[in-house]
Amino acid sequence: MTDRRLAGPVRIVGTGLLGTSIALALRARGVDVSLSDVSPSSLALAIDYGAGRESVAADDPQLIVVCVPPDVTSRIVAAELAAYPNALVTDVASVKVEPLRELLALGADVSRYIGSHPMAGRERSGAISARADLFNGRPWVIAGHDGITYGRAAAVEQLALDLGALPIEMTAEDHDRNVALVSHAPQLISSLLAARLTDATDAATALAGQGLRDTTRIAASDPELWVQILRANAPAISAILHAYRDDLDRAIQTLDAPDAVGARRALAELIADGNTGVARIPGKHGQAKHFSRIVVLVDDKPGELARLLTEIGELGINMEDLRLEHSPGAQIGLAEISVLPTVESRLVGELESRGWKISEALA
Amino acid sequence: MTDRRLAGPVRIVGTGLLGTSIALALRARGVDVSLSDVSPSSLALAIDYGAGRESVAADDPQLIVVCVPPDVTSRIVAAELAAYPNALVTDVASVKVEPLRELLALGADVSRYIGSHPMAGRERSGAISARADLFNGRPWVIAGHDGITYGRAAAVEQLALDLGALPIEMTAEDHDRNVALVSHAPQLISSLLAARLTDATDAATALAGQGLRDTTRIAASDPELWVQILRANAPAISAILHAYRDDLDRAIQTLDAPDAVGARRALAELIADGNTGVARIPGKHGQAKHFSRIVVLVDDKPGELARLLTEIGELGINMEDLRLEHSPGAQIGLAEISVLPTVESRLVGELESRGWKISEALA
Repeated sequence: MTDRRLAGPVRIVGTGLLGTSIALALRARGVDVSLSDVSPSSLALAIDYGAGRESVAADDPQLIVVCVPPDVTSRIVAAELAAYPNALVTDVASVKVEPLRELLALGADVSRYIGSHPMAGRERSGAISARADLFNGRPWVIAGHDGITYGRAAAVEQLALDLGALPIEMTAEDHDRNVALVSHAPQLISSLLAARLTDATDAATALAGQGLRDTTRIAASDPELWVQILRANAPAISAILHAYRDDLDRAIQTLDAPDAVGARRALAELIADGNTGVARIPGKHGQAKHFSRIVVLVDDKPGELARLLTEIGELGINMEDLRLEHSPGAQIGLAEISVLPTVESRLVGELESRGWKISEALA
Repeated sequence: MTDRRLAGPVRIVGTGLLGTSIALALRARGVDVSLSDVSPSSLALAIDYGAGRESVAADDPQLIVVCVPPDVTSRIVAAELAAYPNALVTDVASVKVEPLRELLALGADVSRYIGSHPMAGRERSGAISARADLFNGRPWVIAGHDGITYGRAAAVEQLALDLGALPIEMTAEDHDRNVALVSHAPQLISSLLAARLTDATDAATALAGQGLRDTTRIAASDPELWVQILRANAPAISAILHAYRDDLDRAIQTLDAPDAVGARRALAELIADGNTGVARIPGKHGQAKHFSRIVVLVDDKPGELARLLTEIGELGINMEDLRLEHSPGAQIGLAEISVLPTVESRLVGELESRGWKISEALA
């Protein structure tokens, strides 16, 4: 399958963020891309952006990518399978069990359908936010099933590879269980936490630190999209939340009798289990390795951070990550810079010799 | 009280992160600082760092700052009150009701005690991570009580001001309720979420995105410290978790009957309530205003981000925040830059004219 690039033509149905981004990436590779959207203005916008041409009756696409909201995915996929009897059809919905089940119920020809899910959402939506590089280095799940042969599905894996993504094959059931754990349940838990702030006093929110900001950032997500995702993957999310509630119940019981025998141990194990869990998340570049982090003091004025990063760049050292720490009301900031452990001591020495104030670095 | 800088001498008990940072800041202002710690090596390290001198029997401090773990705070404060009958004593523990209650039970002279809490923790601990600027621009809660006069407590407010912090007065009860909401309950909720990952498959964690990383970052916190905080503030935290569990129960019930009448509306309201809550968190500089954000594509190689920030600095535009988006496996990054809305269009125009690729800006 390697070295066999997708030749096209490819038809994209739905010119939102994902559809337009896929189209832009394919166009950049010279593929003939035809576009379709229920909204004429959305379609026109995507064409303006150079994402492809309007579809015509004579189109005979090799591959059709359905990029519509989860609620309507199976209906649109079924219609495309019927309208284009030579095409392979895939979709990009963030749930995979329900669309397949609905297609089977509709009697669709699933020998030409394979679901997929590029893990490349954004907080922004629409063609206006599309980017050809959106899938670069991101996992792209391909959910095979017994109704389609391996060879027939190859074009979808090739699509992912052509777009720079990392194809990962798993069943629809495994996919839905996995994203429930790493995406859907965390979304709901973050939203429930943020909802506690609705009636918070200003005196309370004035004490908010970076921890609260991080834990609630995704609570700013779009309700309309998330209703569809949560509903479509309800059983898998519910299973996780039931286990989470059991843990929460134990925590509440412990807090309600904080002087009972074993209470300290129960709380310590709760926090330690969290330590263990968070360590399981792979870092940047897909590796679970730990970077060395150093914290540099930066004046909160134009050009200071740039000067710091320029000097780091001059040293030929690549930052693996950069995080600015908020200081409400302060005219000073902290830049936490992650680098490979092998360059840490050189970086600290060089920056200190240039007059930067550095907190101790920890691995 | 303004223009009345703390003259000292000041005695610091406990030379961990907070104690050493306070000492360093006072030394930088020329204050005579004496240090004490149960650990001789911790004390020697703080002295090596220039945080002050070892305490001697003849010391007659004006102010004593007790910077020890929450569990032992009241015992140490009581001992200091007894040993130094002329001194005002404060502490920096992240709970305030329990130490005061314990001091009253111990019969301590609370007419010379006022609790405080600088909101300036770090993921790192120990004298080795101390910084004189740690409190710059941070809220510093001062928890008054009926046993001490306003004038007697003034030196603690002056300490906070001298260290660049923003003194905020509230009762011990209000403080504990507020930090339960913005710090303690979020810590526990994040730990419980991360604990769900303990048994996750590699296939699941490979799909982890920035949302999971953000929601679980603080789950890496130290169990020993958090056991003390959670236990000492158990009633306030439990009250929030009870309400949180009620919301969670409703969410689980909805997910267990996702096709019931009203299920979609219930899920939409849950996500929308999260939207409302997260919007209550003030941004940088203590203001609840929204910055404009633009997203710029940056090659993942040394110097590229620096070049971007240099050019932004040359435009005289101050970044209010900067966030790098992770792209596992990718050689490209996204820099999300927050700026004042008034400079957004100029920044976008200037950067695009210099060849930077920019995603559409959203307010």
